[in-house]
Amino acid sequence: MTQHPIITLTTDFGHSDGYVGTMEGVILGICPAATITHLSHEIPPQAVETGAFVLYQSCNYYPPHTVHCVVVDPGVGSERRAVAVQTSIGVFVAPDNGVLSLVLASATVQAAVALENPAYRLPRTSRTFHGRDIFAPAAAHLSAGVPLAQLGPAVDDLVRLELLSPPGPGLARVIHVDHFGNVVLSLTAADVPHPNNLMLTVGASQIQGLRRTFADVAEGELLAYVGSSRDHIEIAMRNGNAAQSLALRPGAVVRVTA
Amino acid sequence: MTQHPIITLTTDFGHSDGYVGTMEGVILGICPAATITHLSHEIPPQAVETGAFVLYQSCNYYPPHTVHCVVVDPGVGSERRAVAVQTSIGVFVAPDNGVLSLVLASATVQAAVALENPAYRLPRTSRTFHGRDIFAPAAAHLSAGVPLAQLGPAVDDLVRLELLSPPGPGLARVIHVDHFGNVVLSLTAADVPHPNNLMLTVGASQIQGLRRTFADVAEGELLAYVGSSRDHIEIAMRNGNAAQSLALRPGAVVRVTA
Amino acid sequence: MTQHPIITLTTDFGHSDGYVGTMEGVILGICPAATITHLSHEIPPQAVETGAFVLYQSCNYYPPHTVHCVVVDPGVGSERRAVAVQTSIGVFVAPDNGVLSLVLASATVQAAVALENPAYRLPRTSRTFHGRDIFAPAAAHLSAGVPLAQLGPAVDDLVRLELLSPPGPGLARVIHVDHFGNVVLSLTAADVPHPNNLMLTVGASQIQGLRRTFADVAEGELLAYVGSSRDHIEIAMRNGNAAQSLALRPGAVVRVTA
Repeated sequence: MTQHPIITLTTDFGHSDGYVGTMEGVILGICPAATITHLSHEIPPQAVETGAFVLYQSCNYYPPHTVHCVVVDPGVGSERRAVAVQTSIGVFVAPDNGVLSLVLASATVQAAVALENPAYRLPRTSRTFHGRDIFAPAAAHLSAGVPLAQLGPAVDDLVRLELLSPPGPGLARVIHVDHFGNVVLSLTAADVPHPNNLMLTVGASQIQGLRRTFADVAEGELLAYVGSSRDHIEIAMRNGNAAQSLALRPGAVVRVTA
Repeated sequence: MTQHPIITLTTDFGHSDGYVGTMEGVILGICPAATITHLSHEIPPQAVETGAFVLYQSCNYYPPHTVHCVVVDPGVGSERRAVAVQTSIGVFVAPDNGVLSLVLASATVQAAVALENPAYRLPRTSRTFHGRDIFAPAAAHLSAGVPLAQLGPAVDDLVRLELLSPPGPGLARVIHVDHFGNVVLSLTAADVPHPNNLMLTVGASQIQGLRRTFADVAEGELLAYVGSSRDHIEIAMRNGNAAQSLALRPGAVVRVTA
Repeated sequence: MTQHPIITLTTDFGHSDGYVGTMEGVILGICPAATITHLSHEIPPQAVETGAFVLYQSCNYYPPHTVHCVVVDPGVGSERRAVAVQTSIGVFVAPDNGVLSLVLASATVQAAVALENPAYRLPRTSRTFHGRDIFAPAAAHLSAGVPLAQLGPAVDDLVRLELLSPPGPGLARVIHVDHFGNVVLSLTAADVPHPNNLMLTVGASQIQGLRRTFADVAEGELLAYVGSSRDHIEIAMRNGNAAQSLALRPGAVVRVTA
């Protein structure tokens, strides 16, 4: 192929054990020209929703020939399928457990297969490390130009979870807390037709209106704004940590008046 | 260009959210041949001085055609400028907030521009993630061979902070504590003409003389030595953690007799 | 050379200080075409056994022309040797302190040298950062095609530690705890001829038999299984953290009946 192959990795493996580096070795053995990048390896263990969100936020900034390999896999070793999905915005390789739900809702699926062809797995497949034995080889072979249909039979019933739905009328759910303590809500800009009227309530704290950026408020003050991608509303504290200050974690509920 | 393009990234973004991986996607979309390396993404949030020091320590071990992209940016979304600076030791892309001060004091500036040309930003620029929308594209275009002058108007008044000055006569400041608990001081070897006479005092602890290496003292003993780069004096504990033992953090003051 | 050069890095340097990124700069200055991957930089400070185990688990998933550079080096600056070793499964560059013991026990050594030729070090060699000044340049020159024998005199007395031996009859030692809290034992599948009869005892907890995978037990239940590489027996808790639950850390002892 004439394009530089790119593979992104997203896992809950952490950085301490060599698991990610092992996957890179497998990939480079199959597709030596691949550039490998890392979206996150600090997805909380087996947190499918967080993995789905981080992937969804990042993947549309990659060229569409990129192969995104996602291993957040509480069901490793069980009967859950491993799949590869060709879409309008990239190719995705993952367990079929819903971790692709947000991507699938925002892109056009062109083809999907189950990763059952043993020719594109490692010769000896363990029952506990499919990232190395199934997902990394599949991503590498696809990057090296193997057609998707070679990897296994077509599937048309991919698992899709309702991850970003509001928890109820007048409510929004915390779907992610980032490294800075910024809080991403299930609410999007489209849900807020009159930004001046927005009021978010968290315990005794109220956050009024939608600001454009951190510098629109004083240091240490809370603000709501349209986040940097995908138009989700976020809560931040200028030069501070909103999640700590408001005791908000993923799954928490915020009251919305708009 | 005939050289392999290299881009280094230094941020306070952490590794959990996909922010760094998103920047890599933007870079590879513009400059597919780039090799991207990571100096640190664990700069404490918005700690411009630490970011400046880590960059300063590492960048002179890279070939001079390297583009160093630094995003420690407490003023994102405000009026602070984004700049690119061509120097004798490399090209630097960063917010103009002083994070380049140590590099600029140790290199020759050949040209500097403000990153105002929208052709070299992402089409839609957010107000909260300039790393993705402004800095990564600028670094990638420069690596791909776009001349610096194309990116925006020349600037000659880059922000330069006095980051490594001693806090007073007979004193040194802690400028960094590393992963091992080694403590980097603002003091350099040039400030210690008679190494045998050096005495550092931290609370009730005294550290006498300058050693050559950890093995010159017993396990668990404190020592001072000339650090591995830039000739700053460091305090360490052989096979131990000096910063914990002495309760020293960045900004703390040490008494110096020499 | 016609193969894409690959260099892996394994250190106890962490990710915060730029030390790893500095090594990457040195490597790319010498071998611009190198693909650099990272096995772990979170080896506990100076933990030679953990470094040895992570390397041993990962390295055989890399092509045999890979150069593995390992810097877990409590003796930096002392008289311990720096070595490069050509084996049947890859080239290894490391301090000669035993960190290669598990690799050496599982591969055929073809040649080994001490890294004494100053032409393949940085011009100015510090006493505290040999990763940058000695190991990274050696790995890069070897990847770029310099013959091993050029780097220094042959050695035939590499340090080999007995790292994985059982602590006594009927006992196994914890050699690693991973990011998920899975506990790797010194015991291997070969030590368990009758899997149904295996009984592991940790305090008041007993784990009976060998399972195939996590899904063979209920959520929150402990299990023992043959790990994903090198056939070591591991203890895990399905969708939980076995090490926390059993208060097990590296070095702890488990009673084995089989």
